[in-house]
Amino acid sequence: MPAYRAPVEDTLFVLNDVLKYERYNNLPGFADASPDIVEAVLREAGRMAEEVFFPLNQSGDQEGCIRNEDGSVTTPKGFREAFEQYKEAGWMGLAFDPNYGGQGLPYTLHSAIGEYFSSANMAFAMYPGLTQGAMAAILVHGDDEQKATYLPKMVEGTWTGTMNLTEPHCGTDLGLLRTKAVPQGDGSYRISGQKIFISAGEHDMSENIIHLVLARIEGAPEGTKGISLFIVPKFVLDADGSPGTRNGVVCGSIEEKMGIHANSTCVMNYDDATGYLIGEENKGLKAMFTMMNEARLGVGLQGLSISEVAYQNAVAYAKDRIQGRALTGPAAPDRKADPIIVHPDVRRNLMTIRAFNEAGRAFLLWAALKSDVAHRSEDASDRELSEEMMGLLTPVIKGVLTDKGFEHAVMAQQVFGGHGYIEEHGMSQYVRDARIAMIYEGANGIQALDLVGRKLPMNGGRAIQAFFKEVGDFCEDNRADENMSFFTKHLKKGLNDLQAATMWFVQNAMAKPDNAGAGSHDYMHLFGLVTLGYMWALQAKTAQEKLADGAGDRAQFLEAKLTTARYFMERIMPETGAHLARISAGADSMMALAEEAF
Amino acid sequence: MPAYRAPVEDTLFVLNDVLKYERYNNLPGFADASPDIVEAVLREAGRMAEEVFFPLNQSGDQEGCIRNEDGSVTTPKGFREAFEQYKEAGWMGLAFDPNYGGQGLPYTLHSAIGEYFSSANMAFAMYPGLTQGAMAAILVHGDDEQKATYLPKMVEGTWTGTMNLTEPHCGTDLGLLRTKAVPQGDGSYRISGQKIFISAGEHDMSENIIHLVLARIEGAPEGTKGISLFIVPKFVLDADGSPGTRNGVVCGSIEEKMGIHANSTCVMNYDDATGYLIGEENKGLKAMFTMMNEARLGVGLQGLSISEVAYQNAVAYAKDRIQGRALTGPAAPDRKADPIIVHPDVRRNLMTIRAFNEAGRAFLLWAALKSDVAHRSEDASDRELSEEMMGLLTPVIKGVLTDKGFEHAVMAQQVFGGHGYIEEHGMSQYVRDARIAMIYEGANGIQALDLVGRKLPMNGGRAIQAFFKEVGDFCEDNRADENMSFFTKHLKKGLNDLQAATMWFVQNAMAKPDNAGAGSHDYMHLFGLVTLGYMWALQAKTAQEKLADGAGDRAQFLEAKLTTARYFMERIMPETGAHLARISAGADSMMALAEEAF
Repeated sequence: MPAYRAPVEDTLFVLNDVLKYERYNNLPGFADASPDIVEAVLREAGRMAEEVFFPLNQSGDQEGCIRNEDGSVTTPKGFREAFEQYKEAGWMGLAFDPNYGGQGLPYTLHSAIGEYFSSANMAFAMYPGLTQGAMAAILVHGDDEQKATYLPKMVEGTWTGTMNLTEPHCGTDLGLLRTKAVPQGDGSYRISGQKIFISAGEHDMSENIIHLVLARIEGAPEGTKGISLFIVPKFVLDADGSPGTRNGVVCGSIEEKMGIHANSTCVMNYDDATGYLIGEENKGLKAMFTMMNEARLGVGLQGLSISEVAYQNAVAYAKDRIQGRALTGPAAPDRKADPIIVHPDVRRNLMTIRAFNEAGRAFLLWAALKSDVAHRSEDASDRELSEEMMGLLTPVIKGVLTDKGFEHAVMAQQVFGGHGYIEEHGMSQYVRDARIAMIYEGANGIQALDLVGRKLPMNGGRAIQAFFKEVGDFCEDNRADENMSFFTKHLKKGLNDLQAATMWFVQNAMAKPDNAGAGSHDYMHLFGLVTLGYMWALQAKTAQEKLADGAGDRAQFLEAKLTTARYFMERIMPETGAHLARISAGADSMMALAEEAF
Repeated sequence: MPAYRAPVEDTLFVLNDVLKYERYNNLPGFADASPDIVEAVLREAGRMAEEVFFPLNQSGDQEGCIRNEDGSVTTPKGFREAFEQYKEAGWMGLAFDPNYGGQGLPYTLHSAIGEYFSSANMAFAMYPGLTQGAMAAILVHGDDEQKATYLPKMVEGTWTGTMNLTEPHCGTDLGLLRTKAVPQGDGSYRISGQKIFISAGEHDMSENIIHLVLARIEGAPEGTKGISLFIVPKFVLDADGSPGTRNGVVCGSIEEKMGIHANSTCVMNYDDATGYLIGEENKGLKAMFTMMNEARLGVGLQGLSISEVAYQNAVAYAKDRIQGRALTGPAAPDRKADPIIVHPDVRRNLMTIRAFNEAGRAFLLWAALKSDVAHRSEDASDRELSEEMMGLLTPVIKGVLTDKGFEHAVMAQQVFGGHGYIEEHGMSQYVRDARIAMIYEGANGIQALDLVGRKLPMNGGRAIQAFFKEVGDFCEDNRADENMSFFTKHLKKGLNDLQAATMWFVQNAMAKPDNAGAGSHDYMHLFGLVTLGYMWALQAKTAQEKLADGAGDRAQFLEAKLTTARYFMERIMPETGAHLARISAGADSMMALAEEAF
């Protein structure tokens, strides 16, 4: 049967030892996050993930959500009760503004526990996840009254939220959207149109659902410059602020999809629904994008989450299943066969996933820490540089961690052989669930284009130069250390390839933008490899320092870090060369075929 | 809505122009396969795939197979009728021995149309596919009476067949199997045990099902040396050879699985079922393996098939869906947005799949032709060398084409964005169906080990040396040709990497077999890249010759070949370097972690 254990030790290693997270205790909220508080929060979140959310994962997939004839949606058995526990524990507002009932703890901590929740039950974790996205939008763009009206109930989890962007004919290109908003003269609007793929659009776990909806005000300009953002509550609030009249928004159907069956993906029909403008008229797209970074970090985290839970199950199976003998002779001579973990190719799958997960976790927390600095530092230039760096890293996190997360779910499934293909062991579900993260919140091709086309050239390339300098300095500072030279050698080779690719764009993509588009996917993955490699080099250095200090019962953990770091450098880092070669090939052969030749 | 068109033009190009298949008309059956016959067969098979099998693909996935209370299984609506048409067209015996009602046409032709059938409906095509596997086993290992008794009805399709290997505790390691056979003194045996994952194990499309079952005769040695092969018919035959008494074999349940829902994957319970030994006692595993090559080619073909149908649908969507503008400026200024095929990253997906499909098709037909020579040539050394080369190529075809076929189904799904994740467009089904081909008929890790551990060193490496010589000679013969030097340069680089990897094994894996296991997966893919690259170089040469002759209305087709060949060389071939680097890293970091450190 599937199992899951939250990797609290590893999270603590990254936070305390690698990132030295206590250094930030001058930031608001960080002083409250002392090491013992952090550990207690991680352990309690881990426990709830393991004991409450995970047991509903497979049954949730099998049952799915049901749309009833009246348009209401019933979530799988146990989901309501689990959500009650989630609310009561206060997870929803863990890192949220204390003015609205949040606890104001670091976003980094929120991310750390978010991993556990998505590992345990991705479809479940999406309900609060979407709510947090909506909360962020209201916090940043809402006026004081809107914030006071909606946020406290959402922070409690009494009300949940959604994001409504996509329409049947437009997803990526929101300039095409048609949903209409007609002003009513009283400050409100009537919203009409159809939205699709709305996660958590309708369900039975909250008293109200606060939809954030992109629509075009009558007479607004065409394209992206005529889009505004609206709050459309499922129940319009009474004068006393409690849910009153049922609004003109209804779930028309639930999509049948490949995975995340326990999350209701709704077609939402808006028919003269009452909505309230949030932020400025015609600036809706911008409002939506300002909170995209965190939402995209959250999706990148789903990639890691599924990779982790799939890995854990593959390890358990590989230790348990006996089949064949080790190439070097029987490892368990008293049994009829050896556990399959003795076979190199099974190890290859496990080590590849492990090397990704542990670096991916560090990468996410490293970026989340930058997000905290960007939002909480008192130093304006710190804020600005962290914001820029976050912006640069975001498409890499979203694109690379979800591509790899899916790939690793497939690898973990492969360890099970035929038993991975049947639903019983849960491996198929991980693959089916992980697949969506490559698509939503901006398909990964869009992430790559955002990276190469927008983030790279931003402010004359200041962020990417800062990244090059940080990694380059690390290599330079550590290459004379004989324990580190192996790692810095491989990392430097990857960094050189990334710098060469960047230079290639500078020289070849200005005059011919297709050259940037053609190399964007490879560039994103090349960037990802260098970042993950950097995370491994940092972890290797930390592990060596701790081992030198006398590690006690952490010795095996730390030695495993060094082995896994070595595996990453030898086996995964060499891919940078192929990415550079592809980027340097340019767009010609990719774009040459006439449309009708396909 | 999903669509499919059999790529008959491309099959003809490969057979007639690249492989010059008429050269083989001295082989039995080939003289009957004149170019016009071949074209007529391909067109009729293509028509049936498009019009009869494909329309049942999505509905078959949705309905699945149903096991009734009496153990019988109902296939999805339309499957019985479609199977009748398949039978009537004579596809089952197309390449089979005419002594038993087959048409004796080349296996190459059988493979060519097999691609169409699996593209159109993989789950459906598995029913006859398994039957053909059983037919091959009976033909090679059965005695005259067994052949006369079973084959004619199977060739007609009146009876179907299955292969029963896997048990709950053993798949790869068949030495562990427990199913028992007790001799009855009359030449028959009583078979008892449980087999799982039995494709087409029970269904409603044939009058009898002929199970080929691996079991251990009472008192036989332990391990693989005590396994025998048995024929166990669902209905024991009467004296007149017609299905009589219901045998003691029943479908206990149908597996719930990720895909191929329309194929019944059965748990088969044998309870004193009457069985007949086929081939020699205790030589069952060997008997099973002699027909593995063709079965594995058939699975490799499934990888190509799904990649092709997924590609076609992604192309159609990319031409139809409008979203955003080309980086180089509006391509369709009269519309609100451009079709997404203008975007480089969409092209990257399409071109990558296309470059694989067209080379994969050539690879399969090239190998199938070797199979024909191996089975039909009058020259013993021709037969032997072709058999060896087939043996060497088989794990590459199975492992690489199914890994890539799945990867490409995922890429094609990505082109659809969110619409690819919902079941409506059929893209999820291609991904779910393609996944199994990486697992069954020997999981791809086993293919890699078979390649490196058995096939490579066979006869002192004679087959691999012959392969190196063929590809190396091609590069040498064509490098002075200025139209070919681009292709030979890239191909030679790949070949050099493959030769270096082979040498690395020679030097490092003899004393330390884990080094072979650790590099086997990469070696298999490196080999695959070189073979596919060779197929592209051959196609490029052919296309240039035809263009020089004046191609008429094939000019666009031939020009597209050159562009796609170029894409393959620039964008896909560079991966060989990363494979070589990983292989050369050896097993150390992969095997270092203690089991409990995972």
